[in-house]
Amino acid sequence: MENVTLSPDGKSVVIIDQTKLPNAIEYLTLSTSRQMYDAIFALKVRGAPAIGICAGFSIYCLAQTIEETEYDAFLLKFREYKDYLDSSRPTAVNLSWALKRMGKVVLDAKDKSIDEILSLLKAECIAIKEEDIKICKAISEYGLEFLKDGDGILTHCNAGPLATSQYGTALGPLILGKERGMNFKVFADETRPLLQGARLTAFELHEAGIDVTLICDNMASIVMKNGFINACFVGCDRVAENGDTANKIGTSGVAILAKHYGIPFYVMCPTSTIDLNCKTGDDIEIELRSEDEIKSKWYEKPMAPSDVKCYNPAFDVTDHNLITAIITEHGVCKAPFEVSLREAVKKAEDIINK
Amino acid sequence: MENVTLSPDGKSVVIIDQTKLPNAIEYLTLSTSRQMYDAIFALKVRGAPAIGICAGFSIYCLAQTIEETEYDAFLLKFREYKDYLDSSRPTAVNLSWALKRMGKVVLDAKDKSIDEILSLLKAECIAIKEEDIKICKAISEYGLEFLKDGDGILTHCNAGPLATSQYGTALGPLILGKERGMNFKVFADETRPLLQGARLTAFELHEAGIDVTLICDNMASIVMKNGFINACFVGCDRVAENGDTANKIGTSGVAILAKHYGIPFYVMCPTSTIDLNCKTGDDIEIELRSEDEIKSKWYEKPMAPSDVKCYNPAFDVTDHNLITAIITEHGVCKAPFEVSLREAVKKAEDIINK
Repeated sequence: MENVTLSPDGKSVVIIDQTKLPNAIEYLTLSTSRQMYDAIFALKVRGAPAIGICAGFSIYCLAQTIEETEYDAFLLKFREYKDYLDSSRPTAVNLSWALKRMGKVVLDAKDKSIDEILSLLKAECIAIKEEDIKICKAISEYGLEFLKDGDGILTHCNAGPLATSQYGTALGPLILGKERGMNFKVFADETRPLLQGARLTAFELHEAGIDVTLICDNMASIVMKNGFINACFVGCDRVAENGDTANKIGTSGVAILAKHYGIPFYVMCPTSTIDLNCKTGDDIEIELRSEDEIKSKWYEKPMAPSDVKCYNPAFDVTDHNLITAIITEHGVCKAPFEVSLREAVKKAEDIINK
Repeated sequence: MENVTLSPDGKSVVIIDQTKLPNAIEYLTLSTSRQMYDAIFALKVRGAPAIGICAGFSIYCLAQTIEETEYDAFLLKFREYKDYLDSSRPTAVNLSWALKRMGKVVLDAKDKSIDEILSLLKAECIAIKEEDIKICKAISEYGLEFLKDGDGILTHCNAGPLATSQYGTALGPLILGKERGMNFKVFADETRPLLQGARLTAFELHEAGIDVTLICDNMASIVMKNGFINACFVGCDRVAENGDTANKIGTSGVAILAKHYGIPFYVMCPTSTIDLNCKTGDDIEIELRSEDEIKSKWYEKPMAPSDVKCYNPAFDVTDHNLITAIITEHGVCKAPFEVSLREAVKKAEDIINK
C-alpha cells in the first residue's frame, strides 16, 4: 500500500485519500493543479514528509502541461503553479521545502531544453521520495536496536508510512522488526480530538499484520501499570536545541507517565526536524485549533453545549528530561542533547555539502 | 434543576433524561415499573447516589399501586416490584442498598395498616434523598477549605449534582463556593469513551454559571504545565483500606501528572464508598467494557477498522501515594490512610448506631 506515487505514465499523482480511512481505502488520481491543491488543503494527504513528496510529484506533473517552449515563459508558468501549490498549507514546512527544491532545478537549468528540464524535474521528485524512504529506513534501524521480540510498545498519534513514504518514523522500527520476523504488542492511543491513532495508526499497523490494540488516551496509565508496555515510541514535529520536543497534543503526558512507571520514552524524527535556532521548548509556538474539533467533529450530535468553551492546543512540548533518546537517521541522540543533536545535524549537513 | 424528584401528587418519579444531555433537557415521568426499570437500565438516570434515590422513589410509587389490602399479599407484590427494579443494574451498589432499606420499612411494619406503611415508605425515600443532600453538602464544605477565590481546578468524569442529589461530590465545593460568590476556572476532561465530562460536567457547571473549559483527556498535562491548575478534584467509586482509589478510567493518569507538576490531588466521596474489607487497590476488580464504546459509539461512522482490537477498562486505580487527601462527609482523611479512613468510617457508624 503506497501512500503517494507517480502514475505509470508519469502525468498524475496517485494518493490514498486519508480522510476516508479507515472506512475505505480510496486512491485519488490528481491531474490538475486544483486537484493537487485540494488534496493537500483538505488533508487527503497529510504528514509533513508525505506532503513534501506529493508536492514534488505534483509540480513535476504540472510542468509537463506547460505549453511554452521558451525558457523564460516556461519559468513564469512554473512559478505560478509552484506558488499556487505552496499556498495550500502555508504552515507545512516540507511543502515549501520540496517546492523550493524543485524550483532550484529549473533555475539551475537555464541553458537546457524544456525536455531536459522535465527529465531533471522527474529525477528530483523521485529523489525526494527515495531520500525520505532512506531516512525512515535509517531511523527504523536505529530504533529497532531498542526493541526485542515480544515487546509491548505504546505509541501516540500517527508517525507511520501514511505520514511519510515507507516505514515512517515512530512506527518504522515496528514495521521493520515485523518484516524480520519479530512480533510486538502495540498499544495505540486514539489521540483526540483528530483520532489519528484510531483512524491511521491502528489501521496501518493492522494492515501490516502487527498486533495492535486501540485505547483511549486516558488508558495509557493503566496499560503501563499493568506491565503491558516496555517502551514508548513517538514521532515529533520540532526539536529544540536542548532536546525539548513538540509533538501531537498529549505526548508530554505519555512521557510523564512513562517516567513514573520507569518505562523508556523514545522520540523518532529526521534531523530536518531539529531546530538549533530554537533554544528550548518555551520558544515553540503552540497552534490553537477550533473548538468544534472537540465538541462536534465526527459525532452524530454535538457532545457538549454549544456555548461551553474549549481549549484545543494541537501540540504540547515534552521536556528533554523525560526523553530517553531522540532517534534520527544519523544515529541516537542522548543527553546532553545540546551536544548529541548538534552532532546529528552536522552529519546531515556534511552529506549535503559533499 | 433537580435530577430526581417525586412528582407533586407523589405517584410518579420525575427524572432528567441524562442520555439526552447536553442537547436537550428532557424530563421523564416514570409511573410504571417498566418505565422505572428502563430508566435505570438505559442510564437515563446514572451516578450511584442518584440511582439509589430514584429506586427509593420508584418502589414507593409502585407500592401505592398495590391493590392488596392484606399485609402478606401486599408484601409479596412489593417484593416482586423490588426484585424487578433490583435487576435493572445488578452491579450498582446503591440500587440494592436503597431497595433493601425500603424493604426493611415494610418488614418492620407487619402490625401496621397499608396506609401507615405507605406513609413510612414515603418518609424513608424522602430521607434517602435528604441524607444524600446532607452528605454532599458536608463533603462540599470540607472540600471548599482547599479552594480560594480564582483557583483553577481540573476535574475528570462527572461527580456533580447529576450523579447525586445536590452539589455532588467533586463538583460540590465548586458549586457551593459559587453560591458564596467565589469564582473558579474549571477545566473538565471530556473523559473518553463515554464523554461524561463533555456531556454532563461541562453542561452542569455551565448551567451553574461556573467558568468551565472543556478539554480532551490528553490536554491535562499542558493545562497543568501552563499554570492553569491549582488543584485536581475527582470523585471515586471505591476506596481501599490503604487509600488506593478506584475511579473512572484516566483518573490515575491525572494524579500522576498532578504529582509531576506539584499540584494537589483531592478525592471526594461519601464514607459508604470506603471498603475496609478491601486491603489495597490490587483487590479491586476492573470492569472491562465493549470495544464499540471506543470504535463507534457517538460517531457518524466507525473511527477504527472493525477487526482492530480495543482494550476498554471502565476504571483505574490511583495509588494512595498520589492522593493529597480523601474528603468525606465526616472530614478530611490524609496519610496514613489506614488510620484516617477508619476514623471517618467509625464516625458514620456511630451516627447510624445512635
